[in-house]
Amino acid sequence: MTAGPPSLTQDEVSSSPTRCRILATAERFFREIGYQKTTVADIAKTLGMSPANVYRFFDSKKSINEAVVERLIGEVETLISRVADRPGLSASERMREIILALHRDSIERITAHPRIHEMVEAGMTESWEVCSHHVERITAVLARVIAEGKAAGEFRVADPAHAAGCIQTAILRYCHPVLIVRCPGDVAPPIDGMIDFLLGGLRAG
Amino acid sequence: MTAGPPSLTQDEVSSSPTRCRILATAERFFREIGYQKTTVADIAKTLGMSPANVYRFFDSKKSINEAVVERLIGEVETLISRVADRPGLSASERMREIILALHRDSIERITAHPRIHEMVEAGMTESWEVCSHHVERITAVLARVIAEGKAAGEFRVADPAHAAGCIQTAILRYCHPVLIVRCPGDVAPPIDGMIDFLLGGLRAG
Repeated sequence: MTAGPPSLTQDEVSSSPTRCRILATAERFFREIGYQKTTVADIAKTLGMSPANVYRFFDSKKSINEAVVERLIGEVETLISRVADRPGLSASERMREIILALHRDSIERITAHPRIHEMVEAGMTESWEVCSHHVERITAVLARVIAEGKAAGEFRVADPAHAAGCIQTAILRYCHPVLIVRCPGDVAPPIDGMIDFLLGGLRAG
Repeated sequence: MTAGPPSLTQDEVSSSPTRCRILATAERFFREIGYQKTTVADIAKTLGMSPANVYRFFDSKKSINEAVVERLIGEVETLISRVADRPGLSASERMREIILALHRDSIERITAHPRIHEMVEAGMTESWEVCSHHVERITAVLARVIAEGKAAGEFRVADPAHAAGCIQTAILRYCHPVLIVRCPGDVAPPIDGMIDFLLGGLRAG
């Protein structure tokens, strides 16, 4: 056993204001100087604490990133759930608005913080579960709107969950931070045309 | 002016067997030790020539990569053009076969040479024109098959070129080396289900 601060219970860890400050600081570092160049020592120093104290809350930089990415994913989910619940719009209209919201949100985040894709790339490489969980949750929102559109006679797809997976995969080019950063020219169709095409697929069944 | 071997005419450069040997050697290095770690000096040494001689044919490692990627793209184009021309198949069947061929080809290349994505990433970052030219050529083949399907009454899309762009963008997850390497888990729908969905879009118009 190494000497160090006493260990915390699971509840103490997840509800701690210190954990929250570590996350906020880490997120700022990841955004501003990038995930690769940030060290746990930098984060600790900024908070005026020892690296050992940071390790009471997170066992690695990877775990910190997982929590940061998890929070970011929560924001995206909230954003699109709100669009999915918007009253007075058809399912097609809500699908269009959700896809546009995902696209705009990705562009805005990357424009504001060009290094954010490093965080996401690290998450994809080191913590694929976090990413796959994200995909599942976004797919669930899309599937709900598609099922509503099917009930309303707008869409004819047999399996809303499958169609949701297809749509989410089809729009990667417009929403995936890594592709947005790495495909500078625009060889993809404008997003509105892509949405029209995909809505055609939903209507066709 | 720096002293060095005499410069070559454009014709001498592009038809030279030396150029061809440089490309073959570079491609092997990029595949085996990766684009980042390969130097022009390594390539020259393997060929028993001076780096200055390599520079008579290519002005940078970037230019060598462009030529290597260009060759690889030519292979992919030939592959799918052959499928597009296959007699006795409907346009829907040929579209399915083309998408499957693009997918299998990407998987095979990456399985055989896991570092190949470095070449492609470098190409995307340093030589976007090469990539965008590739996208255009693949889109042209898809557009041709879609137009034939439209003429045959199989598809109802208004603009085959636009639909081709949508399909090519929608299948990125299955064909893009960077995504194949970086998305290890499989959260995307199986490719056959995705193709069914996209063919639905083509039929719907």
